Amino acid sequence: MTQEKRPLILVCNDDGITAPGIRTLIRAMNALGEVVVVAPDSAQSGMGHAITINSTLRVDKGNHDAGPQTEYSCSGTPVDCVKLAVHVLLDRKPDLLVSGINHGSNSSVNVIYSGTMSAAVEGAMQNIPSIGFSLHEYDWDADFSGCEPFLRSIALDVLQKGMPANTCLNVNFPPTSLAPYKGIRVCRQAHAKWVEEFDIRRDPRGKAYYWLTGEFINEDQGEDTDEWVLKQGFVSVVPVQYDLTAYTTLEEWHNRLEE
Amino acid sequence: MTQEKRPLILVCNDDGITAPGIRTLIRAMNALGEVVVVAPDSAQSGMGHAITINSTLRVDKGNHDAGPQTEYSCSGTPVDCVKLAVHVLLDRKPDLLVSGINHGSNSSVNVIYSGTMSAAVEGAMQNIPSIGFSLHEYDWDADFSGCEPFLRSIALDVLQKGMPANTCLNVNFPPTSLAPYKGIRVCRQAHAKWVEEFDIRRDPRGKAYYWLTGEFINEDQGEDTDEWVLKQGFVSVVPVQYDLTAYTTLEEWHNRLEE
Repeated sequence: MTQEKRPLILVCNDDGITAPGIRTLIRAMNALGEVVVVAPDSAQSGMGHAITINSTLRVDKGNHDAGPQTEYSCSGTPVDCVKLAVHVLLDRKPDLLVSGINHGSNSSVNVIYSGTMSAAVEGAMQNIPSIGFSLHEYDWDADFSGCEPFLRSIALDVLQKGMPANTCLNVNFPPTSLAPYKGIRVCRQAHAKWVEEFDIRRDPRGKAYYWLTGEFINEDQGEDTDEWVLKQGFVSVVPVQYDLTAYTTLEEWHNRLEE
Repeated sequence: MTQEKRPLILVCNDDGITAPGIRTLIRAMNALGEVVVVAPDSAQSGMGHAITINSTLRVDKGNHDAGPQTEYSCSGTPVDCVKLAVHVLLDRKPDLLVSGINHGSNSSVNVIYSGTMSAAVEGAMQNIPSIGFSLHEYDWDADFSGCEPFLRSIALDVLQKGMPANTCLNVNFPPTSLAPYKGIRVCRQAHAKWVEEFDIRRDPRGKAYYWLTGEFINEDQGEDTDEWVLKQGFVSVVPVQYDLTAYTTLEEWHNRLEE
């Protein structure tokens, strides 16, 4: 395979360009193609599909390990990184976008809060085959080695066979205590939720400030969900689309609101 | 109707608590119930479903006009505002959440970038009947008066009949040049997209910085879309859900990725 024919792979994340998760993903992708990293210069967890429109963006080129990839760090959100990569930094459209490996699960409803998954969704919106990867461990020093064979096999499948239009993949890895993982299961996102609490504190001047905290509650007992298959020790793959129309309720609303 | 029996209405937006759009919405809701405003203290456009997890939140109580509502401004995103309202500031669950009126359209794919709509989606996730309102005008001084009868009629419908589970409404108003509006049409979101460009500038030290710009392109000619009905001078209503699973592709992925 000549250098010119190697696929171009764009790598992004939301934990920031120095995170061990993205370092694992970069290493795996270097074996599959020409890798360009465009990732946030600081942690952007929980940024969802945010874009920077009331402020400016900065980009710095420079590698954070000894690998052959090209790296840019960006002051913006994960979605900003994808847009900057596609419209400014890359000289051709990537053959694949991979985002992650996120430090923490993006299963179930977390997909909507996740900067890592929003980068993948933005990739799909830009018509790039895109995959988000997340590990169910929050530790900075989590062991990502159990993910590696799946990074490779899923990325290769998508490079070879492409992606349905307007779709990307949300891949989640079970906690490392369940590695080696049993295989891959394709599933729907569980209908779970966060029950939030706020930790209310007082600053040195006595004024209140708030930290968001919460507990993840899954009351969806379906055996076809990501939460279920992750508990069984399988890697979960949920195909994700971004048309939010609630088609099943259209008829009801026609009757209620139109005259 | 006694004060105790009036519905509790939570009002949010993403343009910030002083925006004329939210002032119009507050006035309309004051006629329907007890209104509590929890909105960002500065512009949060394009924040999508972002939440603040690496930083703290601040809240200040105080009204920005002479109306009877209670108002809190918050340092966080629109979704932060909803979570803070529900879990800290309100003493009971709201009967209705309304977000907006956004200065600018949130039709089609804009729903995914919009802080205004993400507040409504978060309301649905919190099991609160929720509606986002947006006007297709970016001017701070846009004329919102054409929206008023529809704010009232749609909010009343939802207060009286409720909302299907895991659903909210995305209501968009055509440009003011098309007012008075012809009525309401329920529709799906158009499959349109943004084609981005970045305005690249140099700071006084010669280093590049970037402004995101772009053009909205609608190639979806369906007459059942929000873009279509808005062009005809109707108010568009898209019911919105937040399960992103691409159900129609599950079978294909089972065959491709499972062993």
